Amino acid sequence: VRGYNITLLPGDGIGPEVVAVAKDALSVAGSKEGFELRFQEMLMGGAALDAVGVPLPDETLAAARNSDAILLGAIGGYKWDNNEKHLKPETGLLSIRAGLGVFANLRPATVLPQLVDASTLKKEVAEGVDIMVVRELTGGIYFGKPRGFGTNDKGEEIGFNTELYAVSEIDRIARVAFEVARKRGGKLCSVDKANVLEASMLWRKRVSAIASEYPDVELSHMYVDNAAMQLVRNPKQFDTIVTNNIFGDILSDEASMITGSIGMLPSASVGESGPGLFEPIHGSAPDIAGQDKANPLATILSAAMLLKYGLGLESAAKRIEAAVTETLDNGFRTGDIYSPGTTLVGCKRMGEEVLKAL
Amino acid sequence: VRGYNITLLPGDGIGPEVVAVAKDALSVAGSKEGFELRFQEMLMGGAALDAVGVPLPDETLAAARNSDAILLGAIGGYKWDNNEKHLKPETGLLSIRAGLGVFANLRPATVLPQLVDASTLKKEVAEGVDIMVVRELTGGIYFGKPRGFGTNDKGEEIGFNTELYAVSEIDRIARVAFEVARKRGGKLCSVDKANVLEASMLWRKRVSAIASEYPDVELSHMYVDNAAMQLVRNPKQFDTIVTNNIFGDILSDEASMITGSIGMLPSASVGESGPGLFEPIHGSAPDIAGQDKANPLATILSAAMLLKYGLGLESAAKRIEAAVTETLDNGFRTGDIYSPGTTLVGCKRMGEEVLKAL
Ligand SMILES: CC(C)[C@H](C(=O)O)[C@@H](O)C(=O)O
Ligand SMILES: CC(C)[C@H](C(=O)O)[C@@H](O)C(=O)O
Repeated sequence: VRGYNITLLPGDGIGPEVVAVAKDALSVAGSKEGFELRFQEMLMGGAALDAVGVPLPDETLAAARNSDAILLGAIGGYKWDNNEKHLKPETGLLSIRAGLGVFANLRPATVLPQLVDASTLKKEVAEGVDIMVVRELTGGIYFGKPRGFGTNDKGEEIGFNTELYAVSEIDRIARVAFEVARKRGGKLCSVDKANVLEASMLWRKRVSAIASEYPDVELSHMYVDNAAMQLVRNPKQFDTIVTNNIFGDILSDEASMITGSIGMLPSASVGESGPGLFEPIHGSAPDIAGQDKANPLATILSAAMLLKYGLGLESAAKRIEAAVTETLDNGFRTGDIYSPGTTLVGCKRMGEEVLKAL
Repeated sequence: VRGYNITLLPGDGIGPEVVAVAKDALSVAGSKEGFELRFQEMLMGGAALDAVGVPLPDETLAAARNSDAILLGAIGGYKWDNNEKHLKPETGLLSIRAGLGVFANLRPATVLPQLVDASTLKKEVAEGVDIMVVRELTGGIYFGKPRGFGTNDKGEEIGFNTELYAVSEIDRIARVAFEVARKRGGKLCSVDKANVLEASMLWRKRVSAIASEYPDVELSHMYVDNAAMQLVRNPKQFDTIVTNNIFGDILSDEASMITGSIGMLPSASVGESGPGLFEPIHGSAPDIAGQDKANPLATILSAAMLLKYGLGLESAAKRIEAAVTETLDNGFRTGDIYSPGTTLVGCKRMGEEVLKAL
């Protein structure tokens, strides 16, 4: 049988609970589809800080690199919030993204018919929303140099960062986005601030140039401030969005909240070659950690993205997605998506119901 | 009688229509309150480009500097969209902000009871929203150097910008925001990305330091991605928000769309001393320009902000605000805020109704 090596990074807070459930879902999907998954659990985030003093141990990065795909739970928590930068869980996350070269972050924001009421938007605005945000993940102001602290000519302290994109960085994320758009609704909206920023002017120029390779995809451009408005005004106008690292951070979170159920949303981060990194978009939720209250569906759907985008196993991915849909149709809900008339369950029980449906 | 000199910058698209109406409202408010306003109209934006070839003529900046306050309509339009950067209307806007030193941009996002249905958010989420976004306007990535295009060590073209804040820039905007918060609900939320950016770390450190001068204001901090979510999830949690130039651009537009009626929203940009710049947050709407369809209320409310924040004439400002409320209560609506059962009117007629109410 085909076999794949999966690195599990449970991380902090509710991370271990949701990863445990998703791991079982992966195993069952594998046995149904005739492949075997081997799991290796490694330390990352606050858990790694507590155990070995760094947020991303070398062994973790090495194991991740040598595996076929990585499933991450969540990282961070109040405990480490005031740490110095190199000792923050978040720094571990940025390091593993850079270390794996996963420059393309795919974040779907989908309003499921079963959960349309969870959105704070009016039903007619929210229903049918199905957006994929393709965020550049290893460049821009997150990684640009020079960065740091210094003194200006008046002797004052300054803090500074560099937003920087090179042609090849833009071209490769644009191609990923066009490919994604082509398999979806065929519409790509590139978001930038080209009326002010040179980095955005180059972004717009290159995305427009790459468009000629994808005559079947309809490309439009939008300024980031307008995009932030349009997501609220009429999110259904969007199919696929491509944008830089910081705008993608902001807009993908805004888009996810428009669905009203961020406990449901997965993400995939992939590179040119090498293993991809898959994780729910929600945080580590330290306040409910260890209480069997977390919603594991975002991590289970991240496992589905792992199968599809990480291992090319589309039918296994579809199997997991169908099981999640069936579980929702059967009325099971964790607290974050509960509404009267449905059945309130915990993290483990939700996992069991998904396994049954599988 | 006291007299004030006001520079009018009608600009492009619907700008001249809405400024004409707001000018009348200012004159009437002045005569009621016993002061005189003298108006001087100057060229800016696309109008200036067409007439004299630059988006901000020297005479315009000089006249603005020598006046007591400036009222701007709107700038920009398809016609100039493909101009080179120094020949874009937007460049004129950035230049006048820098030229006047108006570092503090106040953008209210208020859901008026009469217009709560205009929001795409559910009524119970939208009603009562009353947020003031205080955006830093003359620093950060909009103006930071170095910026431009170049070549990296692989010989590739790059585009880059610098996000940079100095202590004094943060301190002064923080003080404005604390003052504003003190006069409002007493809560200030500072938005940054201090888990990633050094410029944000300095921002957070200085805002926290300035907080000791305002023990009566409750300060909190939020990451920008979370703020973009929270504005959708529960906008009522916010009273006053303070943030940098680019995050403020994005979040103030998102907040304004949450009200559902951006044709209603004014803004004020003020500096340490010298005249302030007041403008509606909506754009130049070239598609409806010259058709007497524009909503002049955002510009009229900007005129009220001009009286309050620019000239310190609070009671005259209140008079205008009350007249706008009365006009809405009387059922008059332009197309953008029309709903069945109200009276559809054009730009001029809406202005006349406000004058009557004054
Ligand atoms: C934790 C943080 C560094 C991270 C980011 O900004 O990329 C997070 O917000 C995300 O979007 O995955
Ligand atoms: C037109 C543009 C340069 C401007 C900005 O980004 O500041 C606008 O979006 C605004 O918010 O006033």
